[in-house]
Amino acid sequence: MASLRSWFSIPRGSHFSLANIPFGIISTASSNSPRVAVAIGEYALDLEAFAANNGFSALSIIQPHQKVFSEPSLNAFAALGRPIHSVVRKYIQSVFTVETPYPDVLKNNSTLQKQVLIPLKDIKAHLPFRIGDYTDFFAGLNHAYNCGVIFRGPQNALQPNYKHLPVGYHGRASSVVPSGTPIRRPNGQILLNPTAEKKTPTFSPCKKLDIELELGAFVCGSNEQGVPIPIEKAEENLFGVVLMNDWSARDIQAWEYVPLGPFNAKNFGTTISTWVVLADALEPFKTKGLENDAEVLPYLKEKNEKTVYDINLEVDVKTSSGNTTTISKVNARNLLWSFPQMLTHHTITGCPFHPGDLLGSGTISGTTAAEYGSFIEQSQNGKEQISLSGGEKRTFLEDGDEITIRGVCGADEEALVGFGECIGRIEPSLGLKFD
Amino acid sequence: MASLRSWFSIPRGSHFSLANIPFGIISTASSNSPRVAVAIGEYALDLEAFAANNGFSALSIIQPHQKVFSEPSLNAFAALGRPIHSVVRKYIQSVFTVETPYPDVLKNNSTLQKQVLIPLKDIKAHLPFRIGDYTDFFAGLNHAYNCGVIFRGPQNALQPNYKHLPVGYHGRASSVVPSGTPIRRPNGQILLNPTAEKKTPTFSPCKKLDIELELGAFVCGSNEQGVPIPIEKAEENLFGVVLMNDWSARDIQAWEYVPLGPFNAKNFGTTISTWVVLADALEPFKTKGLENDAEVLPYLKEKNEKTVYDINLEVDVKTSSGNTTTISKVNARNLLWSFPQMLTHHTITGCPFHPGDLLGSGTISGTTAAEYGSFIEQSQNGKEQISLSGGEKRTFLEDGDEITIRGVCGADEEALVGFGECIGRIEPSLGLKFD
Repeated sequence: MASLRSWFSIPRGSHFSLANIPFGIISTASSNSPRVAVAIGEYALDLEAFAANNGFSALSIIQPHQKVFSEPSLNAFAALGRPIHSVVRKYIQSVFTVETPYPDVLKNNSTLQKQVLIPLKDIKAHLPFRIGDYTDFFAGLNHAYNCGVIFRGPQNALQPNYKHLPVGYHGRASSVVPSGTPIRRPNGQILLNPTAEKKTPTFSPCKKLDIELELGAFVCGSNEQGVPIPIEKAEENLFGVVLMNDWSARDIQAWEYVPLGPFNAKNFGTTISTWVVLADALEPFKTKGLENDAEVLPYLKEKNEKTVYDINLEVDVKTSSGNTTTISKVNARNLLWSFPQMLTHHTITGCPFHPGDLLGSGTISGTTAAEYGSFIEQSQNGKEQISLSGGEKRTFLEDGDEITIRGVCGADEEALVGFGECIGRIEPSLGLKFD
Repeated sequence: MASLRSWFSIPRGSHFSLANIPFGIISTASSNSPRVAVAIGEYALDLEAFAANNGFSALSIIQPHQKVFSEPSLNAFAALGRPIHSVVRKYIQSVFTVETPYPDVLKNNSTLQKQVLIPLKDIKAHLPFRIGDYTDFFAGLNHAYNCGVIFRGPQNALQPNYKHLPVGYHGRASSVVPSGTPIRRPNGQILLNPTAEKKTPTFSPCKKLDIELELGAFVCGSNEQGVPIPIEKAEENLFGVVLMNDWSARDIQAWEYVPLGPFNAKNFGTTISTWVVLADALEPFKTKGLENDAEVLPYLKEKNEKTVYDINLEVDVKTSSGNTTTISKVNARNLLWSFPQMLTHHTITGCPFHPGDLLGSGTISGTTAAEYGSFIEQSQNGKEQISLSGGEKRTFLEDGDEITIRGVCGADEEALVGFGECIGRIEPSLGLKFD
């Protein structure tokens, strides 16, 4: 696809080219009610203000729904369904192209430009959705294998169910936070001497604080309780994708997780990027995921081979001394299960979904250390040092470390479809004292 | 405490005596907006209508907040905090006592009585809260032990962490439904031959559909992300308690749950009773839970010994042929961990809570089969038949079976504090076909 040229200045290499048009929730110093916007180059287009000033006058289909742009979350917009998201995105693209058929809407209206185009540096980006339920999967085959090798050796690295169903667990919706929110190192129960016969936990700040490089997908559809979403309908229920960092307390997890799964090790925080890239914008970047050599049950079989996304992901660590190191570069195609498969499996028992529900992919890792999406893999659960620039070393996260995840699709610097950044910095644990 | 006598007719043996005053959300045929009510005897007191007709004119503290009674959930009322819940409950008790200091409010106002007192048989009771997050614990020691014996034998029945922390998992908020909602038997992946070397799952309706007899506690407070709720503050963050049936698909669970815990086996439905008994109403029924012979870490240590509730629970099965059998009678004191301990542990890593979040206790079982709160315990995972009246037998639930959980505190038939009923009937699975 040739890149769309704009009359509006969009820097080369911007994640938010005209090929993208990601949606988010913003507020500004002068107008602090959160509302819907899209990102274009280095600006946010305030859709509440745009709609109020007849920006959508040429788009009759959206006019009865314009109030969704004044909502403090994308839930209502998402609920309108993918055909509407598509029309709105294409219309905004057409308003911004050089040869726009609607020059009077914005191109020739500098007054409105000043009103509705706000530099990204001047906005606050909020959580894009009011998240009803959040589920985290484990679809990164290499990550599952690498962790399995660490804990059980290569012979039993993957559990028997792994290739038959997308393994997942219900996460904590209340602790999903937007990029930029600091993450406090959690306290909890850890086993200082896991090999001792008598297992006596210690109350301590987490000593194995980790990241998980993931994608998150927001759902726009809904299903009645008791009625699954079939695989061929799953795609139309997906709104769009964000970057996700599923912070993990490995030592708390090791002690607590038998038999009901990770709990406090995960529920202290999950960071997502704030601009949701529409499923439509990602469509040209669909690719084949990892091969599944098991016989997948019919309810999970997809017609198309290309069901995951070709997204170049990377993870930076910036330490408190100011050194920044890219510790991982990996492609998002490293998944055994697609988001449609996750959604269909999740609903096969009849579990109901609503717009704004969030699915996490699980940690995305490649097959070499430079492609691992977590510290536990890179440091072999603390056994090996990860070298950072400036001579610093890490096994797990230290206080003051700032993690930045980036992700971008495409090679044409004028037509990138990117996610921006997903950032979180570790604050020291609270010094809790008890009688 | 002597029972409060009322000028209003409350049948002996009613769960909703003046000692109770549980809160719920109702609608009626003539007024279908869900709104707040309390249950008294065989009636609901419509608090929206009561407030609109100056019912609270003598209670100045509630007047600025009266709009909470028009909300479609208890979230806003709960968020006012326990001191307000207490005042409102006591005021309603005083309005209904024989010697009410406010006779003109309702006792001598038959017009208003007709307007605001609605027979329970004429109302629809809704989900009492908009549930943000739902967490299910595993605090029923006898249940954990019984299940551990079934799967691992008596030597390793309890996992090493069990007595050190309240084990729990994040559940699915979207599938929590009010009493009376039918539950469809889920389809999913099960392992027909679990002992075969090659593990090949089959897609099938669940064959081991089970109940879990639990209590649920709704949270009324909130905490900032990163800041735990200390044990001495936990109680004031608890709004009230409901009965809960955590429907479970044991065969789906057995295949899916390693290593991340139960997922589809639980997320198809959780039923709760619709009248929330305030923590205040349960205060006189506090008792000591099960002894914990492990050294509990200081952050989980409670000052008071009496931290669980003396509630007589029972479970009825009504089959499609109309036979009803009480299969379990057990006291709710059979818990190793209290709700305050669950809440404090849940937040110790900094996990944020909001009003309307729900905590499940885990299955409550005694030490004998007649006290087991699940079919898996009663039938020893399908090995033994459970005898029902009329000569019927069960190992797990059959289509058409209706489960009713009841719970009540107290022995004085004129001062019971009861929960009403928590009912669900099993519908046949959908006959799903795939290419």
